[in-house]
Amino acid sequence: MPRADATRNREKILAAAREAGAQVSMAELARRAGVGMATLYRNFPGRRELLEALYKDEVDAMCAAQEPDFEAWVRRFLRFAAGKHGIAVELLAHDDENPIFNVSRDRVLASGRPLLEAAQARGEIRDDLSLEQILDMVMAIAGLRRDPDYLEPMLTAVFDGLKR
Amino acid sequence: MPRADATRNREKILAAAREAGAQVSMAELARRAGVGMATLYRNFPGRRELLEALYKDEVDAMCAAQEPDFEAWVRRFLRFAAGKHGIAVELLAHDDENPIFNVSRDRVLASGRPLLEAAQARGEIRDDLSLEQILDMVMAIAGLRRDPDYLEPMLTAVFDGLKR
Repeated sequence: MPRADATRNREKILAAAREAGAQVSMAELARRAGVGMATLYRNFPGRRELLEALYKDEVDAMCAAQEPDFEAWVRRFLRFAAGKHGIAVELLAHDDENPIFNVSRDRVLASGRPLLEAAQARGEIRDDLSLEQILDMVMAIAGLRRDPDYLEPMLTAVFDGLKR
Repeated sequence: MPRADATRNREKILAAAREAGAQVSMAELARRAGVGMATLYRNFPGRRELLEALYKDEVDAMCAAQEPDFEAWVRRFLRFAAGKHGIAVELLAHDDENPIFNVSRDRVLASGRPLLEAAQARGEIRDDLSLEQILDMVMAIAGLRRDPDYLEPMLTAVFDGLKR
């Protein structure tokens, strides 16, 4: 099979998995992606490999994002964290010591750190908080799982508090 | 028994219970308080009544506090919330529909609301957040259960963000 077709099959499977959610069976996934079981298993020998690929795609997209400033990056991070949650939960159930979590965390932090450091160097953002502290803080607020109208003024206040 | 002695016994039991923690047996509690079992059970027929009294004392102290401003009140609230946690957990185990929780919540909120509203009326604190939102936000951060050095800059940033 030409390489382009192989890549297309892989993308079709991943797209179907994203759309179907993590709970769908491998047989149903093959049906939805329009590929045979052999193709599915050649690409993803098991559910763990499929979940890893979905997770890595989310992380890749987060790291590749070109956000205009640190606040925009943090807001994208919050959407990323909410979106990958379901995948991560199932992947943890399969393999809770998977190094992908630590590696991904480091990659994501590395994608935001230059924006924070530049803003701190320009004196736009206070420098008594680390990137880890800022993300822990906004994740704690997002973790309240209230509706966006309730949470948004909190995040606005936090971003105002980060400015100096 | 003179009323003063009765009050003193009750206070001795509550003080011993606060010091010993919620896990101690009723017999051990009587021993530590230096009262007989009859006196203990006359004051507190069961553990639930004891826990309720401990909880109510904490709430009373919180509501009676005269804090100079809203930030000081919120910081006291955080200490209060951390301190009553153990009592509340055990009380919930005994009686998870106890109306004391809702009543206490309303009383505590009522003790802080005038400080917030006055500061908002003076234009010192932003008015797009309710007291409930502010407390949810700081409790979410305090709930990270990291050491105070890690949390304190987050709270400082939040209080800066509340100012306008």
